[in-house]
Amino acid sequence: MSGATGTIHGVGLGPGDPDLMSLRAHRLVTNARHVAYFRKEGRAGRARGMVEGMLAPDAVEFAMEYPVTTEIPVSHPEYNATLSAFYTDCTDHLRKLADSGEDVVVLCEGDPFFYGSFMHLYTRLKDAVPVLVVPATTGMSAAWTATGRPITWGDDVLSVLMATLPEADLVRHMQAADALVVMKIGRNIDKLRRALRAAGKYDAAWLVEYAAMEGQTVQKLSDTEGRVTPYFSIIVVHGNGRRP
Amino acid sequence: MSGATGTIHGVGLGPGDPDLMSLRAHRLVTNARHVAYFRKEGRAGRARGMVEGMLAPDAVEFAMEYPVTTEIPVSHPEYNATLSAFYTDCTDHLRKLADSGEDVVVLCEGDPFFYGSFMHLYTRLKDAVPVLVVPATTGMSAAWTATGRPITWGDDVLSVLMATLPEADLVRHMQAADALVVMKIGRNIDKLRRALRAAGKYDAAWLVEYAAMEGQTVQKLSDTEGRVTPYFSIIVVHGNGRRP
Repeated sequence: MSGATGTIHGVGLGPGDPDLMSLRAHRLVTNARHVAYFRKEGRAGRARGMVEGMLAPDAVEFAMEYPVTTEIPVSHPEYNATLSAFYTDCTDHLRKLADSGEDVVVLCEGDPFFYGSFMHLYTRLKDAVPVLVVPATTGMSAAWTATGRPITWGDDVLSVLMATLPEADLVRHMQAADALVVMKIGRNIDKLRRALRAAGKYDAAWLVEYAAMEGQTVQKLSDTEGRVTPYFSIIVVHGNGRRP
Repeated sequence: MSGATGTIHGVGLGPGDPDLMSLRAHRLVTNARHVAYFRKEGRAGRARGMVEGMLAPDAVEFAMEYPVTTEIPVSHPEYNATLSAFYTDCTDHLRKLADSGEDVVVLCEGDPFFYGSFMHLYTRLKDAVPVLVVPATTGMSAAWTATGRPITWGDDVLSVLMATLPEADLVRHMQAADALVVMKIGRNIDKLRRALRAAGKYDAAWLVEYAAMEGQTVQKLSDTEGRVTPYFSIIVVHGNGRRP
């Protein structure tokens, strides 16, 4: 213990395949004395699974278990209050470690600053202790790579949409953009199919499940009628811009 | 020489810092017998620079030198014809290597399928020889990470815009999205400043030059009045969506 404050590292692990982890992320993970990660209660955790076999034998793990996931609607005031208290609890623990001189690696799926859970810790920690963030390959990069077709050409506009948006908003944004990525799908899939049809992009849409993970599938969305898809599936509509 | 056709690997190297390269990219690069990369005539090449010191001593290099960059306007028919012939020449060479049983690593800045030059080779090669693509951390991820603020929260819509778009289109897309990334800036910076003002987002815009490269700078755009910026600068406007 040197007395100096430790650093919290928000480390992007990339889309799933550990081989897509950056050299920096890999070095931080394998050398870490303290590792923290989010997971659902009773699960091993997806971020934790990505570093299986990489941690030092004496690494101390801190599993941050979500108090709610889909039991309470996002719009309910209790959802925000419960999650906010949870993030504050997590932050208190990480801050104590840093104050005692320990560095901590927080394992983050995808890129930490792109719709990531780590952001909720980051905003609560950044003015109190040193926090460093390692960017990473996003799940959407893995998804469009899996389709075997480039996502954007020339001056194409790419819009990234959450399927949790109201249907009318989805249609409007789908019409305006050349290339699309839609995430957080799960139970919003039927709304999404309607919105893509209304925007005239249904037949151009691809559904990628488990991009760069075990069980990856790539299908035309129109070939998946009636199917339920996992929350971590991604819809891709490719741009068709200028190209020599 | 086994007689089997070789594979062309389009390898994303990430935003600039070699430490952000993936384990897979690093392994492919260090083991490569044939390495190809784009560069401007008379330059060392940015992609080549990122792997300095990593190549095997006997690696064979193929530098693909752009016949034009900004000498001919993009809208001119000669621009497309010249570039198309250039890409076909490059493809012919790579295909010959693959046909003779050699694997080739094509070094790609950023993510190969996201506005990347490799895409022009890929579409010409993919039906003739095996081509594999390694996704990577994008320059935009490095840019928003450099600002020290997450780019998207909750249901935020992120739009990625090229500064080469007409001003009215820029304004319309800037108004519609919550979070923005603008690339290909260079001499379009004044048009971009006007468009951001018209969309009411000028004061929220950040300019990141050389993200994750030597000489990285991060400034409020409004603090850079009158400055010319490099082509590889990126403008970021953060979303402010729902967060507990």
